[in-house]
Amino acid sequence: MGEAILSDIFTNVLIPATAVVGIAFALLQWVLVSKVRLSPGEADAEGTGKNGYSEYLIDEEEGLNDHNVVVKCAEIQRAISEGASSFLFTEYQYVGIFMAIFAILIFLFLGSVEGFSTKSQPCTYSKDKTCKPALANAIFSTLSFLLGGITSVVSGFLGMKIATYANARTTLEARKGVGKAFIIAFRSGAVMGFLLAANGLLILFISINLFKLYYGDDWEGLFEAITGYGLGGSSMALFGRVGGGIYTKAADVGADLVGKVERNIPEDDPRNPAVIADNVGDNVGDIAGMGSDLFGSYAESSCAALVVASISSFGINHDLTAMLYPLLISSMGIIVCLITTLFATDFFEIKAVKEIEPSLKRQLIISTILMTFGIAIVSWVALPSTFTIFNFGVQKSVKNWELFFCVAIGLWAGLVIGFITEYYTSNAYSPVQDVADSCRTGAATNVIFGLALGYKSVIIPIFAIAVSIFVSFSLAAMYGIAVAALGMLSTIATGLAIDAYGPISDNAGGIAEMAGMSHRIRERTDALDAAGNTTAAIGKGFAIGSAALVSLALFGAFVSRAEISTVDVLTPKVFIGLLVGAMLPYWFSAMTMKSVGSAALKMVEEVRRQFNTIPGLMEGTARPDYTNCVKISTDASIKEMIPPGALVMLTPLVVGTLFGVETLSGVLAGSLVSGVQIAISASNTGGAWDNAKKYIEAGASEHARLLGPKGSDPHKAAVIGDTIGDPLKDTSGPSLNILIKLMAVESLVFAPFFATHGGLLFKLF
Amino acid sequence: MGEAILSDIFTNVLIPATAVVGIAFALLQWVLVSKVRLSPGEADAEGTGKNGYSEYLIDEEEGLNDHNVVVKCAEIQRAISEGASSFLFTEYQYVGIFMAIFAILIFLFLGSVEGFSTKSQPCTYSKDKTCKPALANAIFSTLSFLLGGITSVVSGFLGMKIATYANARTTLEARKGVGKAFIIAFRSGAVMGFLLAANGLLILFISINLFKLYYGDDWEGLFEAITGYGLGGSSMALFGRVGGGIYTKAADVGADLVGKVERNIPEDDPRNPAVIADNVGDNVGDIAGMGSDLFGSYAESSCAALVVASISSFGINHDLTAMLYPLLISSMGIIVCLITTLFATDFFEIKAVKEIEPSLKRQLIISTILMTFGIAIVSWVALPSTFTIFNFGVQKSVKNWELFFCVAIGLWAGLVIGFITEYYTSNAYSPVQDVADSCRTGAATNVIFGLALGYKSVIIPIFAIAVSIFVSFSLAAMYGIAVAALGMLSTIATGLAIDAYGPISDNAGGIAEMAGMSHRIRERTDALDAAGNTTAAIGKGFAIGSAALVSLALFGAFVSRAEISTVDVLTPKVFIGLLVGAMLPYWFSAMTMKSVGSAALKMVEEVRRQFNTIPGLMEGTARPDYTNCVKISTDASIKEMIPPGALVMLTPLVVGTLFGVETLSGVLAGSLVSGVQIAISASNTGGAWDNAKKYIEAGASEHARLLGPKGSDPHKAAVIGDTIGDPLKDTSGPSLNILIKLMAVESLVFAPFFATHGGLLFKLF
Repeated sequence: MGEAILSDIFTNVLIPATAVVGIAFALLQWVLVSKVRLSPGEADAEGTGKNGYSEYLIDEEEGLNDHNVVVKCAEIQRAISEGASSFLFTEYQYVGIFMAIFAILIFLFLGSVEGFSTKSQPCTYSKDKTCKPALANAIFSTLSFLLGGITSVVSGFLGMKIATYANARTTLEARKGVGKAFIIAFRSGAVMGFLLAANGLLILFISINLFKLYYGDDWEGLFEAITGYGLGGSSMALFGRVGGGIYTKAADVGADLVGKVERNIPEDDPRNPAVIADNVGDNVGDIAGMGSDLFGSYAESSCAALVVASISSFGINHDLTAMLYPLLISSMGIIVCLITTLFATDFFEIKAVKEIEPSLKRQLIISTILMTFGIAIVSWVALPSTFTIFNFGVQKSVKNWELFFCVAIGLWAGLVIGFITEYYTSNAYSPVQDVADSCRTGAATNVIFGLALGYKSVIIPIFAIAVSIFVSFSLAAMYGIAVAALGMLSTIATGLAIDAYGPISDNAGGIAEMAGMSHRIRERTDALDAAGNTTAAIGKGFAIGSAALVSLALFGAFVSRAEISTVDVLTPKVFIGLLVGAMLPYWFSAMTMKSVGSAALKMVEEVRRQFNTIPGLMEGTARPDYTNCVKISTDASIKEMIPPGALVMLTPLVVGTLFGVETLSGVLAGSLVSGVQIAISASNTGGAWDNAKKYIEAGASEHARLLGPKGSDPHKAAVIGDTIGDPLKDTSGPSLNILIKLMAVESLVFAPFFATHGGLLFKLF
Repeated sequence: MGEAILSDIFTNVLIPATAVVGIAFALLQWVLVSKVRLSPGEADAEGTGKNGYSEYLIDEEEGLNDHNVVVKCAEIQRAISEGASSFLFTEYQYVGIFMAIFAILIFLFLGSVEGFSTKSQPCTYSKDKTCKPALANAIFSTLSFLLGGITSVVSGFLGMKIATYANARTTLEARKGVGKAFIIAFRSGAVMGFLLAANGLLILFISINLFKLYYGDDWEGLFEAITGYGLGGSSMALFGRVGGGIYTKAADVGADLVGKVERNIPEDDPRNPAVIADNVGDNVGDIAGMGSDLFGSYAESSCAALVVASISSFGINHDLTAMLYPLLISSMGIIVCLITTLFATDFFEIKAVKEIEPSLKRQLIISTILMTFGIAIVSWVALPSTFTIFNFGVQKSVKNWELFFCVAIGLWAGLVIGFITEYYTSNAYSPVQDVADSCRTGAATNVIFGLALGYKSVIIPIFAIAVSIFVSFSLAAMYGIAVAALGMLSTIATGLAIDAYGPISDNAGGIAEMAGMSHRIRERTDALDAAGNTTAAIGKGFAIGSAALVSLALFGAFVSRAEISTVDVLTPKVFIGLLVGAMLPYWFSAMTMKSVGSAALKMVEEVRRQFNTIPGLMEGTARPDYTNCVKISTDASIKEMIPPGALVMLTPLVVGTLFGVETLSGVLAGSLVSGVQIAISASNTGGAWDNAKKYIEAGASEHARLLGPKGSDPHKAAVIGDTIGDPLKDTSGPSLNILIKLMAVESLVFAPFFATHGGLLFKLF
């Protein structure tokens, strides 16, 4: 077997140390962002800050010296920030109640496995040894569930705070040039990326060490209890994604339908009553939702890997360094992303608009290449040269270089998915241009071409995922899948940085428009935003790809824990599970899309009402009632997030309890293979429509000018496509990631209960 | 075990006798339809025919005595019929080449299993006995493949001929009242329904008896060779559905986009150059395509049941009556449907528009109730009280009443699916009304609500299918599934009759418009057409539901024949199959939708060109060039049907040969569970948009009038939805039925080859 090169003590120091470095780096970026002053009073203390407000005189841009603009920006920023905070607080109140109830359920269900007995029980990997009682599992799973939930809340909230802090600063920097604005937006994204990655790692590490105080040598019990962390993280993410998604798109669709289509006023025009709600939405949906989502994926893939490892040779031999291999990979990821970030902020400088997108894409490529070496190093020093992995009842022998391949293939599959997503959603390539071209014959052909594009964009990502699954599964069974997912997520800090960059730039543009800043500034923020759209699409591709791998890994861990050795499609129990599971993403999407539609209708009515009843609104002499629109979005999303949330959370409980683990396995497999397709196609269709519209608006080529300008018939058709795409790409599509992951992690946590008491209906008949 | 009550000789007489009765009934209906004269010269010979042209003087309708109208109708009918025939001939030429090549492939692949040896081989059910050589299987499979293909062609062609014969006659009868027009349209549908059902049964029966001359007592070999019949039927159906679907929707979308949206002329206006192509499309897509599709389902479910039965006690004991139980069910179905038809044509008479839809729905209910008794009788007389069924390697004991339940649950699940489909697509209920209401805020919300409706409409049908699968699978393994599918299809004659009724009425309306007939006549045909839309949706629901059951049965038969005993999702080979399989329907839909889009773009350009360049066209003084539009649709559909066709036909061959039977099993299961959802949601979304538009146009309620009239903004939004729905509901959605069935039946036919030589890639590495 051999020993790992890295000593256990060193591992125990290294993981928290890198997490602290990550947090410190995030704070450094934050300090740099905060140098842009939002109020004239806060003059730069040193007077030398390169980006300080005090140096505004040296620049040539018109309006730069206008104090009123700064005051207005600060005002708008405050409104957005307050709206977002108040929504998140309301959301967390409701979700808090849910979390409390669910925590009790977890305790009761898991405690009942051995009738709340405090007696020890035989271990899975060896029936001769005894492990901690089921009651302990109930208590610690509940604790880690709450911990995961809280970490997710903190992640989402911090992200939102940073984004709303950065948006107006990006606008102000845009007065000095596109390069400076880019740096601010990117640094702000990095604050969020590094805080989330480091925070998640640190809390997981601390929890493991605290739980160990009780569990001691019973690693199986310890890491099973830790899976609650993933469940907590993903439960919050679900509500964050769905609630935030409904919020943002109700506001966006509502604002566009009346503002752009009916009243013919530009996007983000301050006369539009829904404009603040729209900008709030970007922060609660795209930022907080995405943050919670990716944190959930990260937590779950770590948990899946740990729980499988605990009943493999790492766990049985108490080989701590190898056991914590997943955390070491994440630690390495933080270091790699730190270096990568410097390429965007310090080693190169953006000088022209056309450099933005390549610079962001370079981030992905650099981090992937560096991380490949990083994985090799970690695999070499942290793993014994040979070890065994638990594989549905048997132990499979694996070599350390084989595990390297598992992680690396996940990492590179992520890159492939990212670039394919870009190809299908960026208007630099023919697919989106074809969609734009189809606008010549109206909205109907635009929609037909857009849907077809989304369906087509599924092909290569699915093959990429299939290859990763096949290779990692063949090399290291379910552990291989789990670490492949971790590999895809190992550069999460960079991924999140470029992801968060998008909505920040979008908001910056909105603020510029609302503050009445000049045309040139709006053009710069638009350029930032356009690049952000593409990276947001890439980010969604990553999120879905990793969700697919994570949920398969969780599924494998569930099957192991429920002590099933085959899931045979040829049994009716499994097949009906597969069929119904494949239906769930449709049910879920129907709910979320209808919710956006209904909320948008309400918003449209309110906006129309204001335009019709507030005199002087269209002329810009009267102020619209922004708060009413914020309230409509808030109320609608809180109310509408309950049914889809309940569907996802209750399905595993109901199926597991009534139909048992085989049917539940079918449901998980079915929803996974079906959900991933809808998620990818929905995101890409929406992204393509958005960029087809932008392609016509920008008029950068002969072909685009033929279709434009704004207000032409093809452009109107493109706007309709864009509006349809909104709920697809920002609500139902990304929420599906969570659906497939959450059902799997929930099944994993409840596996002991289902294995003992599940399948009531079949037992009765 | 016991013996069946029905003697073998009686069975051998009963089956062909009922088939002949069915054909005779179809001919009788045809004679009744033909009594409506299309030319004044053909005066009714007896002079007493109730519907004869000669009695035109007795009616009061204006224009009834106008000979010009009749001449014009006949002219238009001839144009449609010629267009349809010429398209089908062109299509069959291309498909003929494909069939020939594929027949050679079947022979080579299956012949190579035992190296073209003429030596006998051991049987599956008992390795001690010897069965006919693999070479015989190759020859007879090829023969039955060709036979199935030809039967399918004949079915589609006959259907088209009848429909184009009936459309103008329905228009002329509409002058006398809605009841008379209804009878003509319905009788014509019945001609097609009974001809197809009886023809399929008869040819299958004759083939079995002819093949028996060679196979003698080797029933396993005999019924394995017969599966080629299903493959042939479905291959033709695939090209029919895809080619016809592209044809009809390219013409329809093209005609609508320029005619209705740009030029503001009514549907089916003779000034529109694409109008003839549009009407031809209804006949080649909805009629010929649907006919081939359902014939394929019928042939496949019979084959699946027969091949499983051949290695069960029926086959081993050479119990002919029990063996032919599937055919006896179909015979009973013909009798039941015959009685049911009389309820629509003779026992009751339609007097008002509002009676049409209930009358059609009553057909479904009556046939289902009668058929339940029919199944009970057949199960009682044709089956031994106890028998055994082959269940993946073991024989399972089954009672005759258990098999009754299997067939009956399929039958009733079909009814449930039909009525749920109606609920979601008829504008009498709230779902479609909500979609119509969302048009108030424009096309975008209409599309969002429509997509959500389609997704939601999947839920109950999937549960209905899941329950049927669970019950029939539990009671009688894969044989249970196969007979459940047969149960759903047992009332196919009635199903097809009300299905074909729709496009015939649609065409009748088109002819009325083109012939310049009065407003009142158009209203009557519109009423017929509206009811037809709903029944078409119900028919599509049936087609998808039965396709799901059929393909599962075929999948089961494939697995048995390939001698796999488990398909374990927890093996990488199967899982990646599942994932990629679930992706195939998206790939396929992307191709077909894009094809419709591109063909429609070409059509739009041609129609625009004609409007712009032919002077006097808009004023109605010049004739458009119809043939050019027919040519565009024909060329586009022939060209575009190849890639999706190749995808479906080649996937099983490639996967089976390179990756082997386990991966192929995964692909089949994945495409089944994913495809059925897309198919249902696409069909229902499209149907709902169509009827939401009709709801606004008809203005039958307070609410509907609020949204209308024609030309209002909500109506325009509804038209956009309708246009988007066209390819969803008539091209990609229904083609997916065939995708899932065809891949399964192809795998079944090639199973011996894959089992022997498959999985090359894994063997190499």
